[in-house]
This record gives sequence, C-alpha cells and structure tokens, in this order.
Amino acid sequence: MRFRITPRDTTFFDLFTASAEHLVTGSKLLSELLGADRQGRKAIAKQMNDAEHLADEATHTILRRINSTFVTPFDRDDIYALASALDDCMDFMEEASDLIVLYKLDDLPRRVADQIQILQRCAEITAEAMPRLRSMQDLSDYWVEINRLENQADKLHRKLLAQMFDDVSDPIELMKLKEVVEILEEAADAFEKVANTVETIAVKES
Amino acid sequence: MRFRITPRDTTFFDLFTASAEHLVTGSKLLSELLGADRQGRKAIAKQMNDAEHLADEATHTILRRINSTFVTPFDRDDIYALASALDDCMDFMEEASDLIVLYKLDDLPRRVADQIQILQRCAEITAEAMPRLRSMQDLSDYWVEINRLENQADKLHRKLLAQMFDDVSDPIELMKLKEVVEILEEAADAFEKVANTVETIAVKES
Amino acid sequence: MRFRITPRDTTFFDLFTASAEHLVTGSKLLSELLGADRQGRKAIAKQMNDAEHLADEATHTILRRINSTFVTPFDRDDIYALASALDDCMDFMEEASDLIVLYKLDDLPRRVADQIQILQRCAEITAEAMPRLRSMQDLSDYWVEINRLENQADKLHRKLLAQMFDDVSDPIELMKLKEVVEILEEAADAFEKVANTVETIAVKES
Repeated sequence: MRFRITPRDTTFFDLFTASAEHLVTGSKLLSELLGADRQGRKAIAKQMNDAEHLADEATHTILRRINSTFVTPFDRDDIYALASALDDCMDFMEEASDLIVLYKLDDLPRRVADQIQILQRCAEITAEAMPRLRSMQDLSDYWVEINRLENQADKLHRKLLAQMFDDVSDPIELMKLKEVVEILEEAADAFEKVANTVETIAVKES
Repeated sequence: MRFRITPRDTTFFDLFTASAEHLVTGSKLLSELLGADRQGRKAIAKQMNDAEHLADEATHTILRRINSTFVTPFDRDDIYALASALDDCMDFMEEASDLIVLYKLDDLPRRVADQIQILQRCAEITAEAMPRLRSMQDLSDYWVEINRLENQADKLHRKLLAQMFDDVSDPIELMKLKEVVEILEEAADAFEKVANTVETIAVKES
Repeated sequence: MRFRITPRDTTFFDLFTASAEHLVTGSKLLSELLGADRQGRKAIAKQMNDAEHLADEATHTILRRINSTFVTPFDRDDIYALASALDDCMDFMEEASDLIVLYKLDDLPRRVADQIQILQRCAEITAEAMPRLRSMQDLSDYWVEINRLENQADKLHRKLLAQMFDDVSDPIELMKLKEVVEILEEAADAFEKVANTVETIAVKES
C-alpha cells in the first residue's frame, strides 16, 4: 500500500456505492416482474424505468464531479469507465424488463428466472465491493466471484437457447424470447465489465 | 482555460471535422435511399459505399498523423478513440443501406424514416461540434443534445420493434427488418459514443 | 527506435505469443469440426472447450504478471487491452463451435467454411506478429493484412446472409444459422481489435 501524500476526494466511493445500489434495486424488480401477472408487470416495468432514471442521474453526478475535482482517487479515465460500466448494467436490465412487457411474454422459460437470479447475485456483490475501492483491499474475491457467475450465466444462456429452439415452435415467439434472453446475458457481461474495470484500477493502484 | 506553452498541431481539428462531414453525407444518402425505388436504391447504396471508403481514408489519415506528430492537441489514445468512434457511425449507416438493398426490403415501416432523421440530426450537430474541439468551448450543448437524441432513438426503436412484431406475420421478413432496425439503433449508439469520447476529452482538458 | 534505459520484462512477449497460439489451435479445430459428422463434432467441440480453458489461463497469467511486474514493456492498460482482445477471439470461436453442436446444424452453407478459413489466416498471422512486439519492427504489414482480411470477412458475411435468406425457408433453421454466422463475424472483428490494439501500442512506442 502506497502512502498518500495528497488528500483525495473520498465521495467518489460513496457515489459508486450509490450507483451500484441502484443495480440491486433493478435486479430485484426484474425478479418481481417475472412472478407478476400482465397488469403487475406493467407497474413493475414503470418502477424499473424510474430506477433507471435514478441510476442515470447517479452516473451523471459522478461524471460532473470528475470535472470539478482537482485530485481524484484514481485516474479520471478509470472513474469514467467504471461509472459507464455500472450504468450499462442498469440499461440492459431495464431494456429486458421493458421488452418482456412490450412483447407480452406471459410464459417465460423457467431458466430465465435462473438468469435473473445470477444478475441479482452480481448486483449484490458489486454493491458490497464498491466501498472497498477506498482501501483497495479484499477486491480480488469480488472479481473472481463475478467471473465465476458470468461463466455460469454463459453456460445457462447456451442451454436456454438450445432448449428454446427445441421447445418453441412459433418462430415469432422464439425471436421475442431470444432477444430477452440475450439482453439478460448482455447484462451479465456488463457486470463482468464492471469487475474487469475494478481489477484494472486495483492493478494500477497496487 | 489553460495557457498553452507548446504549439499544437491544429490540423487534427480539420481532420475530425472532415471525418464528421462524411457522416452528414452518409445520413443524407440513407434518407434518400428510403425514398427511392429498388433501382434507385442500388445506385444510392453504391454512393454510400463510396462515402464509407472516403470516411475510412479520413480515419486512416488521422491515425497516420498521430504517428508522425510530436505534439498532439490531446492524448494520442483519445485521438485514436475519437477517430474510431466517428468511423463506427459510418460503418453502421453503410451496413444498414447495404442490407436494405440486399434483403430487397421494399416496404419499410414509416418509423424507420424517423430513425434515419434522428441519425441525420446527430450527424449534423456532430459535424458542427468538431471545430469547437479547438477551443474546447460550448461543447456541452452538443453532448447533451446527442444524449437526448439517443434516448429518443432508443424509445423509437423499442416502439418500432413492438409494432413490427404485431404487424409483420412473415418471420423471415421480420428477421430482415429487425436486423436493419437494430443496425440503425447501433448507429445512434455510435453517435453517442462519439459524444462520450468528446466529453472525456473535454473533462481532461478543462 | 528509442534507447531503453530500464531493463524490461521480456516474458510478456512470450506470453502474448502463447496466447495467440491457442487461437491457431482454436481456428484449426473449428475447421476440423466443419468436416466432421455429428459424433465427431461433439468430440471436437470438447477439444475446443479445453483449448478455450487453456487460453483463459494464458490470459490470467498475463494479467497476474502485470500485477507483479515493476517495469512492463508497455503501458499496463495496453497489456490488459491486448490480453483481453486475444481472449475475445477465442471466446467467439468456442461459442460458434458449441452452438454448431447444440443446434445440430448438420448442413452449414459452404461459405461458412470460407469464414473459418479467414479466421485461420487471422490466427496464424496474429501468432506470427506477437514476437515482433519485442522490437516493434515490421508490425504494420500485420495490421494492414488483418484489416484486409476483416474487410473480406465482412463482405463474405453479408453475401452469406443474403444467400441464406434466399435459400433457407425454415425460419427456425435460419435463426440458428444466422446466429452462428454472426458469431464467426464477431470473431473476425475481434481479430481486428487485436490488430488495432497492437497498432495503438506501436504508435505510442514509435
């Protein structure tokens, strides 16, 4: 651990934590949406939309602060990359929720719930890891676990695709399902990108 | 505004402006293509292909100049990122034009014209913003407006998808349309990435 | 060529070469898989999976070494970017191989073999270029050739799409084929990204 001579603006850590907490909310809403009926889903998709707006504001608060802060806790580029990567996770989850409602996908395969459960776990450990950026301690457990979860999501995604191609005979229904399933997989990839960005920052600061 | 001690190669600003002007041409051609008949579309797609080659050369001129210039106006990495991001916008627009012709998509939904109109507006304000990189003044209006346009494109894209799934009963026709509509959405995302890159540069230089 | 005052850890060059050699193995396996029957394909997809795991370990060896090395041959960010870009090539090739087996795609269009041949050529010249990172000499031939191959892959990909839309009447079969063909195109893009990363590094070091 290097000795810091200059004081650094610590609020960035709080901002990243706040940003990641929106992801916990988002992933929970996705999970609730799945269990709801068509009317309930509309209401939840609306809440998801609000959560996405809040996450967006959190991102812009970080970006503006990069601008107004003289000494940042790590490279401006990395702060930018981390804020954007967190924002992407939310965008994909919100897109999935919106399309499930738009496409009126009443019966989603059971494995979609498994995909969303992985996203929920990703969101939780991401939110837990953000405050540890301050000390840069104990972060490797986080990115190792995210990599494991993303691998699991990837395997699940392929099984789900193969199963859908076997089970769903209506090609238009299949196209809708495939799109939602792929956006959920992109959300898992986005969480991995957050973890990779954290790893890059930790490597530089170590 | 910092006082510059070293003279900086100003031609980069002209090169970025030239590069962005190809995007204005490209987006206009896309709009013309939509209004043309099958024969006219082939001719316009050929012009689009030529425009893409010119844009490609403009990009490579920038990249070579990074190589041969001792003092660049901003980080080499950022020049590279901006040149690549501008190039991506053109690639997506050219791909869309090519696929509309290849897939013989005579009747595109009316909202595709709205997508292209947004791209045209994005191209115009991007081209207007590039010369302002010199002074780094008045750039925030540009990226705020691009973000607004990209949000609008995103909403339009989802409505268009839902509408297509309701209206188009031939799954193969639907797959073709969906691909074109998604590439146009990727073009809008690419314009946003240009704006994000400009924002990153402005943040560093401020 | 700059004169180096500090000794630099040269093993990074060996690690990048090893990583790229996994891509040669992977592209060969893809090509063999295409010529095999359904049973043979399963065995080859398993070998591909093993190759992907080895490539993954090679990537992590590089990333860990960034961490433990005081003087790196070039920017840590660039080492990270190059290792990740090489890893992406393998991921796409493995995904294509896995889906060909999962989707039981017995009859692939002949042009898929052409796509894979381009990937094989990309892998070979990438593996040949990696040791030249040491001297930073004669690298431009490599990235110019990769750009040429990627252009060729792009044209082939569009022709293949148009042909498939004309020839395949079963929309579900078409969706499967389209996905595999697009992942192979993403693999070609990933090789281009490797070449772009090498170009960025060479530009900085020149």
